[in-house]
Amino acid sequence: MFSEEVAAAFKKIQDKIIVNLEKEDGVGEFIVDNWARQGGGGGITRVLENGGVFEKAGVNFSAVHGELSNEVRNVLQTEGKGFFATGVSLVIHPKNPFVPIIHMNIRYFEIDNGAQAWFGGGIDLTPIYINEAEATQFHTDVRSVLDVFDASYYLKFKKWADDYFFLPHRNETRGVGGVFFDRIGIEGKDLANCFSLCSALGNAFPDIYLPLVSLNKNRSFTRENLFWQSLRRSRYAEFNLAYDRGTKFGLESNGRTESILMSLPPMAKWVYNYSPEPGSEEEKTQLLLRKDIDWLNRNV
Amino acid sequence: MFSEEVAAAFKKIQDKIIVNLEKEDGVGEFIVDNWARQGGGGGITRVLENGGVFEKAGVNFSAVHGELSNEVRNVLQTEGKGFFATGVSLVIHPKNPFVPIIHMNIRYFEIDNGAQAWFGGGIDLTPIYINEAEATQFHTDVRSVLDVFDASYYLKFKKWADDYFFLPHRNETRGVGGVFFDRIGIEGKDLANCFSLCSALGNAFPDIYLPLVSLNKNRSFTRENLFWQSLRRSRYAEFNLAYDRGTKFGLESNGRTESILMSLPPMAKWVYNYSPEPGSEEEKTQLLLRKDIDWLNRNV
Repeated sequence: MFSEEVAAAFKKIQDKIIVNLEKEDGVGEFIVDNWARQGGGGGITRVLENGGVFEKAGVNFSAVHGELSNEVRNVLQTEGKGFFATGVSLVIHPKNPFVPIIHMNIRYFEIDNGAQAWFGGGIDLTPIYINEAEATQFHTDVRSVLDVFDASYYLKFKKWADDYFFLPHRNETRGVGGVFFDRIGIEGKDLANCFSLCSALGNAFPDIYLPLVSLNKNRSFTRENLFWQSLRRSRYAEFNLAYDRGTKFGLESNGRTESILMSLPPMAKWVYNYSPEPGSEEEKTQLLLRKDIDWLNRNV
Repeated sequence: MFSEEVAAAFKKIQDKIIVNLEKEDGVGEFIVDNWARQGGGGGITRVLENGGVFEKAGVNFSAVHGELSNEVRNVLQTEGKGFFATGVSLVIHPKNPFVPIIHMNIRYFEIDNGAQAWFGGGIDLTPIYINEAEATQFHTDVRSVLDVFDASYYLKFKKWADDYFFLPHRNETRGVGGVFFDRIGIEGKDLANCFSLCSALGNAFPDIYLPLVSLNKNRSFTRENLFWQSLRRSRYAEFNLAYDRGTKFGLESNGRTESILMSLPPMAKWVYNYSPEPGSEEEKTQLLLRKDIDWLNRNV
C-alpha cells in the first residue's frame, strides 16, 4: 500500500538522520521512545540531550491512523471519516551559539484510504548570529533539492516559509527561512513525485545541515554570545507555542505532548524590552530577520 | 466620568503595589515606561528585574480607547463601535524557589461610552513547591475580599480560575488557582459594586502576597530547587503563550508586545519527558496541580 511505503521510507529517513547526527555529535546518543496512540498507530520519538555538540535534538517519526474528529474535519475542510498520517519532524538546538538551530519536517496525510491525499513539509534555519554566506549556502542547497522536481517550487515555497515562520508581534522572521509547503499532490496527480520530493529533502538533510555544524561547532564564544542565544531561543519558543500550526494542531488534537514540545529550546530567557547595541553583531542579525531577502542573489 | 474615575483608581492601585513591592525587595527599582497607543490612550509599564527578592516583576497600567476592530467585535460579540479599556495587570517571578509566582489583573471595558460595560479580573498563585498551609491562607485571604461583595462569588470565581488556569496538554493546573471572573456588572446593575470589588482586590494585593514573600524569601535552596523552578517556569510560559486569552487578545489586537509579554519568566528550561522522583517534594507538588481542590477546607 502506498501509505505503508511512505511510512517505511520516512522511518528510514529518521534512522539515517539519527546516525549522522550522532556521528557529528561524537558524545551524545538519542534515546528511543516508542509510543502507541489510542485510536491507532504510534511513533518513535528520539531525543538527544546534553551531547557534545547538540544541547537538545529531537527527531520524531510517527504513523498514526483512526477516525477524524470534528475539529480536525473543520480544520482540514473535509467530509472524510478515516485518516492516516505519517511524518518525520526534527528540531535541533546546538550548544555553540554560532551553530544555527534547524527544523525540518516531511509529512503525508491521507483521508479515507486515499480518497484525498497530500504531502507537506519544509526546512528552515534559525541562526543565533546570521552569517550571510552560510544563509546563502543553505538556500542554494535547499533549492538544488527542489529544482529536480519543479523549477518553480523553490521561489514559491521560499515565500511560503517567509510568511509562515514569522512572528507578527515582533515583526521579525524566526530566522533566515528556507522552504515550507503543504497539501502538494492533493489534485491527485503527481503524488508519487511529491513523495520523491519529500524523501529527497529528508535524505538531503545531513548534507544540508551538518557542514554548517562542522564549520562552527568548535568556535569559541563568550557569555554575551550565550545570553543572545538564550534570547533568540525565547523567540523560538514564542513562535512554536503561539503560532506554529503543527504544534497547535498536535496539542488540540490530543497528540503526544512530549513529542510535540520536544521542539522547545533547552533553555530560554526573557528580558524586558531588550534591544541589541547599535553596531553590534546582535543588531546585525536583528536587522536581517525580515521577509523577502533574496538569499540566493545576495552580495556578501 | 465613570471611566475616568475607574482609570484614576486603577492607576493609584498600580502605585500602591509598586511602593510595597519595592519595599519588600529592598534593592530593585521599577523602571517607568510610559507608552502611547496609536489610536488612543496609552499606559505605564513598570518592570523590576534582578532585584534582591524579585527576579522579574511587571506591574502594568493602561487606559486605552478607540475604534473596535472587526476581530475584536467578533471576540466580544458586540455591534458597538468605540471602546474604552483600563486595567492593572501584574506577574511576579521571585528569585527564591520557595516564593510563589503570582498574577493579578483587574480590568474595566466599556463600549460606546457605556452602552455596554463590565469588569473582570482575578488573582492566582503558582508555587514552585506547593505549601498546602500557604495555599489555604491565600484562598482564605482572597475569599475574605470577595465575601464583602457577594457571598457566592468566591466559589463561583474559584471554579472559573480552576478551569481557566489549566494546561490541557499537560493535564495540570498552572498552580493552586485563586479566582477569575469576567464580564461582571454587564447586566447594567451593580457596576459600581463591581468597581468596588476590583478596587478592593487591587488594594488587598500587598496584604495577600507579601506575607508569602517575607516568610520564604530568605529560605536556603539547592541547585535542584532552582532546576525545578526553571521547569515550572516553562509551564508558565506554555500557558501564557498557548492559552492565556489576555495574551492572545493583546498580541492579535496589536497591543504593546513588551508590556504583554512581561509576564514571561526571566528564564525557563524544557527537558524532554521529565518527571519528578517518586516520593520527592517535586512529585508532591506535581500531584497537587489539579482542579477542584477545596483549599479552604483542606486538612493539612
